[in-house]
Amino acid sequence: MGKALIIGAGGVASVVVHKCCQNPDVFEEICIASRTVEKCEALKNKLDGGRTKIQTAQVDADNTDEVIQLIKSFGPDVVINVALPYQDLTIMDACLATGVHYLDTANYEPPETAKFEYSWQWAYKKKFEEAGIMAVLGCGFDPGVTGVFSAYALKHYFDGIHTIDIVDANAGDHGYPFATNFNPEINIREITANGRYYENGEWIETPPLSEKKVYDLPEIGPKDIYLLYHEELESLAKNITGIKKIRFWMTFSQNYLTHLKVLENVGMTSIEPILFEGKEIIPLQFLKAVLPDPASLGPRTKGKTNIGIIAQGTKDGQPKNYYVYNVCDHQECYREVGSQAISYTTGVPAMIGAMLMIKGTWMKPGVYNVEELDPDPFMELLNTKGLPWQEDFSPTLLD
Amino acid sequence: MGKALIIGAGGVASVVVHKCCQNPDVFEEICIASRTVEKCEALKNKLDGGRTKIQTAQVDADNTDEVIQLIKSFGPDVVINVALPYQDLTIMDACLATGVHYLDTANYEPPETAKFEYSWQWAYKKKFEEAGIMAVLGCGFDPGVTGVFSAYALKHYFDGIHTIDIVDANAGDHGYPFATNFNPEINIREITANGRYYENGEWIETPPLSEKKVYDLPEIGPKDIYLLYHEELESLAKNITGIKKIRFWMTFSQNYLTHLKVLENVGMTSIEPILFEGKEIIPLQFLKAVLPDPASLGPRTKGKTNIGIIAQGTKDGQPKNYYVYNVCDHQECYREVGSQAISYTTGVPAMIGAMLMIKGTWMKPGVYNVEELDPDPFMELLNTKGLPWQEDFSPTLLD
Repeated sequence: MGKALIIGAGGVASVVVHKCCQNPDVFEEICIASRTVEKCEALKNKLDGGRTKIQTAQVDADNTDEVIQLIKSFGPDVVINVALPYQDLTIMDACLATGVHYLDTANYEPPETAKFEYSWQWAYKKKFEEAGIMAVLGCGFDPGVTGVFSAYALKHYFDGIHTIDIVDANAGDHGYPFATNFNPEINIREITANGRYYENGEWIETPPLSEKKVYDLPEIGPKDIYLLYHEELESLAKNITGIKKIRFWMTFSQNYLTHLKVLENVGMTSIEPILFEGKEIIPLQFLKAVLPDPASLGPRTKGKTNIGIIAQGTKDGQPKNYYVYNVCDHQECYREVGSQAISYTTGVPAMIGAMLMIKGTWMKPGVYNVEELDPDPFMELLNTKGLPWQEDFSPTLLD
Repeated sequence: MGKALIIGAGGVASVVVHKCCQNPDVFEEICIASRTVEKCEALKNKLDGGRTKIQTAQVDADNTDEVIQLIKSFGPDVVINVALPYQDLTIMDACLATGVHYLDTANYEPPETAKFEYSWQWAYKKKFEEAGIMAVLGCGFDPGVTGVFSAYALKHYFDGIHTIDIVDANAGDHGYPFATNFNPEINIREITANGRYYENGEWIETPPLSEKKVYDLPEIGPKDIYLLYHEELESLAKNITGIKKIRFWMTFSQNYLTHLKVLENVGMTSIEPILFEGKEIIPLQFLKAVLPDPASLGPRTKGKTNIGIIAQGTKDGQPKNYYVYNVCDHQECYREVGSQAISYTTGVPAMIGAMLMIKGTWMKPGVYNVEELDPDPFMELLNTKGLPWQEDFSPTLLD
């Protein structure tokens, strides 16, 4: 039916490639492209032999012209961008230049400062409309499925939603006293940044990790959850009509936070170089070198993730509550696609979004966050493509 | 009255020099010698102008011949060794060659492996007897005053002591989330080593920090204390006749242990080099480079130390308990001699020991631990020279 160009060859890209190859009726042909072509070749070698035809290519995604050339030579229906967030705009420019649809899983970040905001990408709306092509932004799990869950809740169960709490829990255990799931710099930035949430038209900042609750999650049990800012809050506050309050919560264990706090206390997370034996060394870089390689955690990680949204609102004038969530098992993911649940829950929705675009189910010119599109076909595919969801109509609420 | 050669120019040496200069009737002349003569000069410049005449010299204390030459040219009555424990034997050899008395504050350590044992130095006993000179071993606070306290207890209050608990508490606060008082390698080695204590003729090993109690210390309050091995246990178990059980306890805060545990967990205390940007780097060395310089803690440290012994035994057939301890204030020490209490409590007893040797009060040929000598004159001088002690005849006992 169609062709997808997948840019990126990391953990999430690997999941996307695996899942595309499981759906060869839609993904007849894919091209895996990244700066390091060997990584693409390794993926191709693992998956070649199925019905999906696989090509690979070397591309510098920072260079729009290179991406344009690649799109012209491969001729995809859609570009699935699972490269770095710094590269969203160069790839969108290449899609505009070639008239090809676009999908990503994380908002554009300028390389110098993390802003976690959509402004740069939303500014492309008119250009995409005029070019008659579509961009779907943030189509991983969170952002991504959390927006689909929100749209689905509003469509089917509410006249109006006034509060959404997104709860992202990872109860995976890799057996090390301390390790980070992905780049520790990003983990550390997440935890040391102020929290932020939306209430009554305003954004309210909270000191780092100052808002903590315990929530008893299905199939995982009670966990410490902390209020963080997360990028989908911006688009959901804008797109879910009538919303008064929206927050994002993530689990961190006391052990994890203690380790991170100590490393911060002693200066090991600093990015200020120190002079050591005549050489400037950045402590955080050295810390990364002593910590376990995040890529080594996959085969060791046991336990489950649970990510969902708790919505509060009204239906037919009566108060109404609704919790919808997915539980994902690290080891089952690893057996299926060779990646643990963190990559799996991001890669599967990216494949589903691209599938809906190729099929024409999700197709209108412009730039969209997922909650602006019809959630029903996406929700159906979640159930059949590896991320089944469950509902609870009387959930415990977060005050 | 006499002349002392002080080898070493670190924190403890600085206290010894200050205290000798406060007692010019005994220390008419001193020579400060170390590998780095600039440190000796700096001390001389600070203290010159009093009645004690000060010389300085450059010496490599690993080299017996250099020490012999220095002793011959200066002609001291006693050598006060406050250099590194690796250098005890070369300096003792030099004393034997020149017929000069010797005193140190820490047992000899072979450079490769820390053993915390007196065997090498006790083997010099006969040689010192034959040469008609005296060596006093371990004359700091612990070892040192703890041995004097034990001998004093036995002499005045007991027919027999069956149990001694040495309790070493440091309630100093330097205001950093984490720093080590001296070389962090030694701190870490202390905490990661097995504990060991003596009971009924046997040495019993315990896993690192596995034996913990809370003890309410005078002027400090309740603290977590942990059973460690400490070198004076070896000599006290041998010299305090009839002793059945002897243990050593040191305070560590939960915060300190948490920091150390995390740093161990992530591999930052390892001495196995890792390859970082093409260069082999030992994680522990890099950690030392990011931690505050131990030398910078002196002016910042507030609070007190309390070190003492709790003795249990019998007097006239009745059970008898006795606690004798010194409380020392970090900031008062810093005001007096420019060092905090850790260095002060080690340096003052070294000066007192040398004073008693020069005066002839402590003088007999051979090699001795302090508890083998008359404790009374030492106890008097503790009270007048900066380390006054207090007694408690109904202390809380450690079970």
